[in-house]
Amino acid sequence: MLSKNQIKLVHALELKKNRKREGLFVAEGPKVVGDLLRAGYEAVMLFSTRAQEEGLKGLQVDSTSAQQVSEEELRRISFLQHPQEVLAVMRIPVAQEKAAIDKTQLSLALDGVQDPGNLGTIIRIADWFGISTIFCSPDTADVYNPKVVQATMGSLAHVNVVYTDLEQLLSATDVPVYGTLLDGQDIYQETLTPHGVIVMGNEGNGISPRIRQLVNRRLLIPNFHPSAETAESLNVAIATAITCSEFRRRF
Amino acid sequence: MLSKNQIKLVHALELKKNRKREGLFVAEGPKVVGDLLRAGYEAVMLFSTRAQEEGLKGLQVDSTSAQQVSEEELRRISFLQHPQEVLAVMRIPVAQEKAAIDKTQLSLALDGVQDPGNLGTIIRIADWFGISTIFCSPDTADVYNPKVVQATMGSLAHVNVVYTDLEQLLSATDVPVYGTLLDGQDIYQETLTPHGVIVMGNEGNGISPRIRQLVNRRLLIPNFHPSAETAESLNVAIATAITCSEFRRRF
Repeated sequence: MLSKNQIKLVHALELKKNRKREGLFVAEGPKVVGDLLRAGYEAVMLFSTRAQEEGLKGLQVDSTSAQQVSEEELRRISFLQHPQEVLAVMRIPVAQEKAAIDKTQLSLALDGVQDPGNLGTIIRIADWFGISTIFCSPDTADVYNPKVVQATMGSLAHVNVVYTDLEQLLSATDVPVYGTLLDGQDIYQETLTPHGVIVMGNEGNGISPRIRQLVNRRLLIPNFHPSAETAESLNVAIATAITCSEFRRRF
Repeated sequence: MLSKNQIKLVHALELKKNRKREGLFVAEGPKVVGDLLRAGYEAVMLFSTRAQEEGLKGLQVDSTSAQQVSEEELRRISFLQHPQEVLAVMRIPVAQEKAAIDKTQLSLALDGVQDPGNLGTIIRIADWFGISTIFCSPDTADVYNPKVVQATMGSLAHVNVVYTDLEQLLSATDVPVYGTLLDGQDIYQETLTPHGVIVMGNEGNGISPRIRQLVNRRLLIPNFHPSAETAESLNVAIATAITCSEFRRRF
């Protein structure tokens, strides 16, 4: 039986200010919750429609934090249209270190990506292509937003997402700073390096003017038949995927 | 002033059966509506919050079908969280020809793509990469679903979407049929052709077994550091983007 306070807490965690105050976020579904638990995230509460032992199978979780609920109860707390058996309230890890660029690796920097679905999808892309750190400007969507957590499909467990002042970060580095810009060079032809930072911008406005000045390798994803009328732009997650794919193809 | 019948009609067009019965669909925003009108789609009704002349500027539309509405009225009929000045009720074009593969071109075939956002994004990707025809299995999401129309960002104006029996279509062709499958060959290394059909599958289950048998060029988008734990899969729109990008890079 869910208590009123439990329902209230889960609902409250839809908002960033409440997540920040409580230091908690919500993850749903056996895949997402399982991946996070296996990566060392701590579940403060875990609600499952499966019988307790069955529900915890494969989830390395302290059984004292787990509770069986009915499907109706799960529906009351779930943020999903189709709830997926398990909902966990998890602890937001405390940032352990100062944001720093690993000069031997490829990283992503997101400058004002607003849509939670896009951020989650980008985390999933980074995971696929072995990019372990994403730097986000403070105005990028919050990674612990339930919609972001869900869209990562568990990849949040493998990718480090760090909020930081991108201007400060990028002006202090000597690794190549890549960005896709309208006046960039054809990404398929340009020399790319196996290390550096790839900056992706806001959905409507692209990379902000101050960060744009710090991009020293300007790339362009060419459209096909550029003489004909084609789409004016690509969705930011799509552009991230094509860019990461092209970097990884080379090395 | 909106009439009750107008409001009722627009709301009804959220459902496929009503769109089919009426032969109508809804498009929103100056970009999407403008692109469709310029491509020859007919607006049966057009509601705009801008003064009539201003609202029709750049939209080649018969002014008799246009009507000025208040922002409150637009909110009542809009399917968007943030309505965008214009909402048009448009006529679904009658399919003019039998589904046929153009042997000189690259086409896409979608086998059960369910999510409207994914379908819309794939149409936008096709447009960017100059792919002018997408064949869809009958169980793929409906292209005139308001969420699909919106996610295309106007690209529906440039891409031909044809619903057809994929098994029949693909078994009758002699062009290469590509598909991304877990047992495929590294897409970055494989020989690709400038013509053929690229099959993309359902979000959860991939390409269905019967269609899989018709794929004669099996591709794989390799993840990076395949020895480490990475994301288990890519979203279907992301995989489509990477695949199309790799085809277009070669030619």
